[in-house]
Amino acid sequence: MAGNRVGIVGVTGYLGGELARVLSSHPGLDLVGAVARNPSGPTLGECCPFLSDVREVRVSRSPEGLDCDLAFLALPPGEAMRTTPGLRARGIRVVDLSEDYRLKDLAKYEQEHGSPHQDPEGLAEAQYGLTELHRTSIRGAQVVANPGCYPTAAILAVHPLAARGLLSGPVVIDAKSGTSGAGAGPTSATHHPAVAGDVHPYGNGSHRHYREILEALPRGAGTPISLTFTPHLIPIVRGLLCSIYLPALQGEPGEEAMSAIREAYAHELFVKVGEIPRIPWVVGSNRCLLGLEPNPGSLTVFSAIDNLLKGGAGQAVQNANLMLGRPEHEGLPAGGMGL
Amino acid sequence: MAGNRVGIVGVTGYLGGELARVLSSHPGLDLVGAVARNPSGPTLGECCPFLSDVREVRVSRSPEGLDCDLAFLALPPGEAMRTTPGLRARGIRVVDLSEDYRLKDLAKYEQEHGSPHQDPEGLAEAQYGLTELHRTSIRGAQVVANPGCYPTAAILAVHPLAARGLLSGPVVIDAKSGTSGAGAGPTSATHHPAVAGDVHPYGNGSHRHYREILEALPRGAGTPISLTFTPHLIPIVRGLLCSIYLPALQGEPGEEAMSAIREAYAHELFVKVGEIPRIPWVVGSNRCLLGLEPNPGSLTVFSAIDNLLKGGAGQAVQNANLMLGRPEHEGLPAGGMGL
Amino acid sequence: MAGNRVGIVGVTGYLGGELARVLSSHPGLDLVGAVARNPSGPTLGECCPFLSDVREVRVSRSPEGLDCDLAFLALPPGEAMRTTPGLRARGIRVVDLSEDYRLKDLAKYEQEHGSPHQDPEGLAEAQYGLTELHRTSIRGAQVVANPGCYPTAAILAVHPLAARGLLSGPVVIDAKSGTSGAGAGPTSATHHPAVAGDVHPYGNGSHRHYREILEALPRGAGTPISLTFTPHLIPIVRGLLCSIYLPALQGEPGEEAMSAIREAYAHELFVKVGEIPRIPWVVGSNRCLLGLEPNPGSLTVFSAIDNLLKGGAGQAVQNANLMLGRPEHEGLPAGGMGL
Amino acid sequence: MAGNRVGIVGVTGYLGGELARVLSSHPGLDLVGAVARNPSGPTLGECCPFLSDVREVRVSRSPEGLDCDLAFLALPPGEAMRTTPGLRARGIRVVDLSEDYRLKDLAKYEQEHGSPHQDPEGLAEAQYGLTELHRTSIRGAQVVANPGCYPTAAILAVHPLAARGLLSGPVVIDAKSGTSGAGAGPTSATHHPAVAGDVHPYGNGSHRHYREILEALPRGAGTPISLTFTPHLIPIVRGLLCSIYLPALQGEPGEEAMSAIREAYAHELFVKVGEIPRIPWVVGSNRCLLGLEPNPGSLTVFSAIDNLLKGGAGQAVQNANLMLGRPEHEGLPAGGMGL
Repeated sequence: MAGNRVGIVGVTGYLGGELARVLSSHPGLDLVGAVARNPSGPTLGECCPFLSDVREVRVSRSPEGLDCDLAFLALPPGEAMRTTPGLRARGIRVVDLSEDYRLKDLAKYEQEHGSPHQDPEGLAEAQYGLTELHRTSIRGAQVVANPGCYPTAAILAVHPLAARGLLSGPVVIDAKSGTSGAGAGPTSATHHPAVAGDVHPYGNGSHRHYREILEALPRGAGTPISLTFTPHLIPIVRGLLCSIYLPALQGEPGEEAMSAIREAYAHELFVKVGEIPRIPWVVGSNRCLLGLEPNPGSLTVFSAIDNLLKGGAGQAVQNANLMLGRPEHEGLPAGGMGL
Repeated sequence: MAGNRVGIVGVTGYLGGELARVLSSHPGLDLVGAVARNPSGPTLGECCPFLSDVREVRVSRSPEGLDCDLAFLALPPGEAMRTTPGLRARGIRVVDLSEDYRLKDLAKYEQEHGSPHQDPEGLAEAQYGLTELHRTSIRGAQVVANPGCYPTAAILAVHPLAARGLLSGPVVIDAKSGTSGAGAGPTSATHHPAVAGDVHPYGNGSHRHYREILEALPRGAGTPISLTFTPHLIPIVRGLLCSIYLPALQGEPGEEAMSAIREAYAHELFVKVGEIPRIPWVVGSNRCLLGLEPNPGSLTVFSAIDNLLKGGAGQAVQNANLMLGRPEHEGLPAGGMGL
Repeated sequence: MAGNRVGIVGVTGYLGGELARVLSSHPGLDLVGAVARNPSGPTLGECCPFLSDVREVRVSRSPEGLDCDLAFLALPPGEAMRTTPGLRARGIRVVDLSEDYRLKDLAKYEQEHGSPHQDPEGLAEAQYGLTELHRTSIRGAQVVANPGCYPTAAILAVHPLAARGLLSGPVVIDAKSGTSGAGAGPTSATHHPAVAGDVHPYGNGSHRHYREILEALPRGAGTPISLTFTPHLIPIVRGLLCSIYLPALQGEPGEEAMSAIREAYAHELFVKVGEIPRIPWVVGSNRCLLGLEPNPGSLTVFSAIDNLLKGGAGQAVQNANLMLGRPEHEGLPAGGMGL
Repeated sequence: MAGNRVGIVGVTGYLGGELARVLSSHPGLDLVGAVARNPSGPTLGECCPFLSDVREVRVSRSPEGLDCDLAFLALPPGEAMRTTPGLRARGIRVVDLSEDYRLKDLAKYEQEHGSPHQDPEGLAEAQYGLTELHRTSIRGAQVVANPGCYPTAAILAVHPLAARGLLSGPVVIDAKSGTSGAGAGPTSATHHPAVAGDVHPYGNGSHRHYREILEALPRGAGTPISLTFTPHLIPIVRGLLCSIYLPALQGEPGEEAMSAIREAYAHELFVKVGEIPRIPWVVGSNRCLLGLEPNPGSLTVFSAIDNLLKGGAGQAVQNANLMLGRPEHEGLPAGGMGL
């Protein structure tokens, strides 16, 4: 099977670097070019000193010359919707890792951002890409909106329950993320002396993740879902854990709920249900590990991912594999670093 | 005002060392002796190399020769109930930092531990010592059961709501603690390579904290409280945060609930209600900082303490101050390290 | 003994905040005012939320109204030399925590900074303030240049050897500092995801520390000292360790060298010679702990301090105590946090 | 090219788990069995929950049934020399990751350990396996003594200098290692609360590393090398940095020394000379990155590796590839995780 040509737009950020890392050992996707606004040098070797053997991949300042089948966009909010139309006009399919194409409501977008969305047609046809839930639509999509890291972990845990109408009670998601999720730009929120001894709940941006989670959940006739979502920054670099509380679960000891989750992923390679997961088990892996803790009348689900892989670059490659007709798991590590 | 003579039994553990540290600068409590099963040397200087000027405090292997007004017990579970009767027979009052005297139910104790409680009379008269809630009873008590670190942070946040009958919906407590809470003995759960990149929910012992929290909350006529409590270990050393979710709060936007909490602590030096707290603000401090985040129909309360101070040695000294007729806040830092 | 009035200029940085913390419990120095360019609020309570009971200390935007006996300057490089003359004109003595007054050579200053020093007279009369070495001169000084954190740890270890002419061979200082030493401003060098898994040698600014160390060491007739100094950033917040190698020490097994160090500090409260120190033993303490490891023909000295205390705010207060005729150790903790 | 059958003895330790991880994606080495004294379950899936698709690899309690071409031994000190003879009697070649076969001197072994070496013939024929230095001998060896993590980083940096006779002055190695280097067993030295805020020099075992480094360095006629080696534990999990000081280098500005290092590794994939390395650049990689910092008359070399890969399991597989006639780099990642 011949390889496909892919490019990365925004390669100097953390997700862009992680894409380059995954693609550097992918047997079927050839990284033919990269784009960065301020590259550290003319080739990927200078931009990503942790990589090896990528010195011949050129880094340009503009996506205009990028010649490939599919481009990964790893750009700050608001830039993907300006970049995508040009790429699509040249027949390049897009996996966008930003939030630009995740939420469909144009009016809300304008209300939140104070300016209109720059690619409404793209938004209309973009496919939300939580791979395990939307395989068929992803295969044919021209633009895939890659999910956020928090929503990936949360939705995989809760979706099977919503699909069976088990979410009549409140859902409380206490999420903990490593600091790489905040990106490569230094801020006071990620300043080491301030972060290293703290665990900090934060609201900035949580509303978008909240809506992204809600929109992805199927709903019975008119039943609203009562969702609380609170992200916390913890002093680790990679990894994310959602502790998901269903304190008033419909039905008894949560048996039906546990069955729903187990059955939903019984045949998945990248989503596993088992004991309470540890972050180092998913670091370096494209897996989401789910652990179940039942109590009388309630259930707690722990969902762990590597925020840069299943929560970002890994899922993006998983989606690209599907879009390009390749084996879904090609080039993606299922096992974690362990330490 | 003359000083009082105090001693520490179990000085080589983390809480024992923290007691020694606090007492070394306490203007009214004179540390006259310490006890440890396996001291590193004959005086406190060898056992606590981080301290200064404590070389003349002797460390014995048994509490028998301890001559003081009040003894702090910082011992493993099951040892305080064997040590307390002997101290009390000699007229020494006790602040016990273990769990031995916290839960009153003798039958449950025996059921859980497989052997009977060794000091049922002591247990019957012991006063639970969450200082802000039980000042009067603490003053006259012979034995005070110092609260656990998780319960201290949780109860201070939730008690005002329970007292006003506002807890008809579920209460979800997602607690995150630094590793010093696990004590000075190395275990696989606190092995640096395993812990440093992880955030780990754990069940061991959570049931006792769960019951300690429940027992401390006042209840209206027959209404049970639906409580979920899940502790997590995070890779910091000192500090503890409880994220407390009230997803279906009685009444509207949580105004009554917020007022209840604010009013309960309006005149407290060591409990403050304000913005979302940061752990470094309470490290080194005996304060509990509470932050409120209201949402339509729900409320989240964040409660932060230094697990070794307000969650341990600090509150123990606060209680001892009361028992000995001293100013409650004497010798206790209200401000935190900041970094 | 009546208290003295002091002020802090630059209270929103880490050293400024640490000064406020130390002064908030100092029995003899009254913090009467603070200055910050962009304060978070009108009083110290808003600028330092980790402190308690400092709500009545006003924070101004300019030092002009500051009315006190002595001012601590905790400002970025280049600002103290612009602020000091105005304060001195009003009879206010100064302890400057920046590098502005540390190195005497005006020509080198201009050469390094590309512009002349703004207070050459101040520089000429300023006293370098490594307290244990310069007590007498500090007492009478109008301006004290408080040493840098690295130089404090290094000089205290090496000075006794230089004073006895034992440094004929090379001196290698491998220094490791926590990230609070880099200050409160976020940079890529202190971005948590980049720092948390790294130990990083860095050159920026090391030349100035190198010269500061060299200048403080006494020299025999014409013998140059061969010094290598390499700072490393490590993923802790507070604390600093210098591993100081004397691989070709004059004389035998280092006995004379060890005696020189032990005797130099035999009567000091804040400098102790003993076993290899641990960082948590000095965190929160104004002590410098020195550990000696002799080998045949060589000696290694480990020197640990809290970079914000003995390496900054603590030594500044120690110097202020001397300048104002107060007990040198007043208000300064000798013991450390331990954890 | 047909695959080779390999096994792991001691799979529950950190190096054993890392071997299993590397081998799980190795295209030419088939992991056919593993051995552990106390496995968590009958297959590798239970022992290494971070791995994927290893459920069919059986874990036995004894190496007796292990049927393979080559066995990796990842055992505590003293056990490999008891296990190797039996394996070799069955024609199984051995890569031993412990120290048992590293130092040739039988008399010193007995003196240090108080008991004789259990496999003196094996020791006599064992080949020290720092791959880049001993390729030819490794290819034909029956037993390869895989180097320690500290020696690997140190020797790669210093060997080219020793080979050219440039080490007449002192060599000071200040080494910093993450805690995974201490192994999977909890001890007070790796207890999170004690380690997380500290950087700690330690002597235990440093003498063996010291000798391992010295023995691997070529020497001119009779010139002794003056080496100081001090390991420090730092609060990261993976990774190791040696800061190597040559404060009195023979010859001028270190140009000859720098050339020697650059030329030695000009054609190596796994040893690169460039800018000062960062630990995350080597985490997950089998590379050693060397950075050079010249000063007048002296040179500092920084050498970084992943202690579990190039410093352990990675180099072991690199050696096994050579022994089995496979491409040296097969199955080994050259690029690092970056974060």
